[in-house]
Amino acid sequence: MEDVHIAGVGMTEFGRHPDRTGRELFGEAAHKALVDANVPRDDIEALLYGNFMGGFAEGQNHQGPLMADAAGLTVPATRYESACASSGIAVREAVKKVRSGEADVLLVGGMERMTNNPTSVVTEALATAGDDLYESRVGLTFPGAYALMADAYFDAYGAERADLAHIAVKNHANAVENELAQYRNAIDVDDVLEAPMVADPVGLYDASPITDGASALVVVSESYAEANDLQTEVAITGTGQGADSLSLQSRESLIRTPAAEQAAEEAYEDAGIGPDDIDVAEVHDCFTIAEVLALESLGFYEPGTGYAAARDGETTRDGELPVNLSGGLKAKGHPVGATGAAQLVELTKLLRGDHVNSDAVTDAETALTHNAGATVASAVVHVLEVVQ
Amino acid sequence: MEDVHIAGVGMTEFGRHPDRTGRELFGEAAHKALVDANVPRDDIEALLYGNFMGGFAEGQNHQGPLMADAAGLTVPATRYESACASSGIAVREAVKKVRSGEADVLLVGGMERMTNNPTSVVTEALATAGDDLYESRVGLTFPGAYALMADAYFDAYGAERADLAHIAVKNHANAVENELAQYRNAIDVDDVLEAPMVADPVGLYDASPITDGASALVVVSESYAEANDLQTEVAITGTGQGADSLSLQSRESLIRTPAAEQAAEEAYEDAGIGPDDIDVAEVHDCFTIAEVLALESLGFYEPGTGYAAARDGETTRDGELPVNLSGGLKAKGHPVGATGAAQLVELTKLLRGDHVNSDAVTDAETALTHNAGATVASAVVHVLEVVQ
Repeated sequence: MEDVHIAGVGMTEFGRHPDRTGRELFGEAAHKALVDANVPRDDIEALLYGNFMGGFAEGQNHQGPLMADAAGLTVPATRYESACASSGIAVREAVKKVRSGEADVLLVGGMERMTNNPTSVVTEALATAGDDLYESRVGLTFPGAYALMADAYFDAYGAERADLAHIAVKNHANAVENELAQYRNAIDVDDVLEAPMVADPVGLYDASPITDGASALVVVSESYAEANDLQTEVAITGTGQGADSLSLQSRESLIRTPAAEQAAEEAYEDAGIGPDDIDVAEVHDCFTIAEVLALESLGFYEPGTGYAAARDGETTRDGELPVNLSGGLKAKGHPVGATGAAQLVELTKLLRGDHVNSDAVTDAETALTHNAGATVASAVVHVLEVVQ
Repeated sequence: MEDVHIAGVGMTEFGRHPDRTGRELFGEAAHKALVDANVPRDDIEALLYGNFMGGFAEGQNHQGPLMADAAGLTVPATRYESACASSGIAVREAVKKVRSGEADVLLVGGMERMTNNPTSVVTEALATAGDDLYESRVGLTFPGAYALMADAYFDAYGAERADLAHIAVKNHANAVENELAQYRNAIDVDDVLEAPMVADPVGLYDASPITDGASALVVVSESYAEANDLQTEVAITGTGQGADSLSLQSRESLIRTPAAEQAAEEAYEDAGIGPDDIDVAEVHDCFTIAEVLALESLGFYEPGTGYAAARDGETTRDGELPVNLSGGLKAKGHPVGATGAAQLVELTKLLRGDHVNSDAVTDAETALTHNAGATVASAVVHVLEVVQ
């Protein structure tokens, strides 16, 4: 089985890009990744591409061939859509293809353009990630869904809003120096607690923003890297995917995310490691409570204990396990289809030492991404390791 | 490398289903396929699912986990979207996964719900398969795009509307006995020529209809089939995918579909056969001119000669190479995301001998599907063979 290396990574600035089309955004990310990889375009065998709401936001489905064009490629190109886990799943499929020998060089990434629509339209579009018939249509938007999960968590474990606020504070702090992040303003706990309420107990600073952006990776087989003398520094050594019912009402529990537990278990086993081996992680903090559930699903914390991690400084940049050093979805931004691949972009740089926050993890050798769709109906986890 | 067998197939009736949700439609197709396969649900390892316009038509993206629920499964489930080639590409990815040993038993299929929206909304939704910025938004809908292609073809080769009319007549004739087809009325050439014009020279009977429906297959490794004593009769022995620019204006020619040529070349090589070995085919006749371009891209006819095939009785049910014995997209119907997998459902039955039109191909051993996205920016071809 071929080992899978990350040869290059690229990302646009995450934020508002009112004057740029989706193809421009993805073209930029893809070009950066190709330049970073020093891989000729002719060697790229396929594009695996994540996008969620292109039909709504730009009247543009069928973005696979469009984005291949934008990247200067005429290769088989397929769009993967699993809501906010779209490009994480595209990465997983790329890993599978390289491992099996189906391909040696793949471009994988994602893009979302969201801010060009009124907030009401974006809210409606985001709601299509949930169960339209039984939940979204009767008013359960995602802030509402995660509010239910947060309330259930508070009830079960006695956590409170101030605990979650520390997560937002941490992720904003991490984004301050990240020139690609959408919100680079430091905030404090009072800012979070006093911000307008979106869906009690989810306040404005508990929620990730609406964002435009794109991300891309060039993944290659180890054989190709060696034959072409690429100085690859990071490998994808573990991948896992899990599933749950789409509708929240079908779940046994609102305070566990078994899809992420399954994905993590598979990814750890695949990489031959466990949660204690992870030095740094990017997790899907679409809401602050989501980061808590992620930490617990990934085995970093026992159920009911993850809420204190940021508050107690364990997941801050100086903590034992820095989480979301990029700023996370919360502060870096969350262009839905780009988010999963962007997590790998950030971690690749962190592990290579060329990320603005690399100084926080100078000895890091093993990293993890956690990317989730909707209320974690889809989940995908990857383990990255420094190539020895 | 594992051989890939089709263990079971299922389809809903294609047509208008105003009272049925998408999950009901896919649930029916999936259940039929699982019963046909005689494979327990617990053995299904993942769902690969094609859908195109769920965001528009039902406010429902992220249909992977939803449709897994509908099929009674909690397994990793991913939506593939390549416009009208969505489930054809899902089938291809399933083939790759079984061959590589990643999985032994997969559910693959697709669904589209279209008729619940006003025609204007469906037209707008379909246009999202093209290049929104430079073509769709300025009015180039798909009937218009294929009209340009037909005009260019007429100019180049001297064909005329009456030649294409024979394709519609043939496909309607094939659908008459197919109880799953949307339009089971026989028509004649005059009906086609006298029908209202949609986009000159594309008339109403040159265009496939708006359709609701779902399709599903259970694909398994040969090892699994043998170990579980499944009496699989059909194998997928060839798969190919090709690509072209999404925008029509970027093409060198309007009368060739190189993406389909690439997909066919790859699929033939993969199966170790050539076009002369194919006994029966289902091709993507979203418009009558599309069937002509398909026949030529697949190597059944030289460029500029395929237009006469139906007229001359070569692709009718009694001809040398029956094409679209199901009725094709034209008469069976075209629920976009279900179409690619449905082609394999029909051919599996034709090869097994349990299709209403099997008597037209009693000695058939080798079959081919051609599934295309937009104006063939995406194309996927499969070769099916009777298991010896």
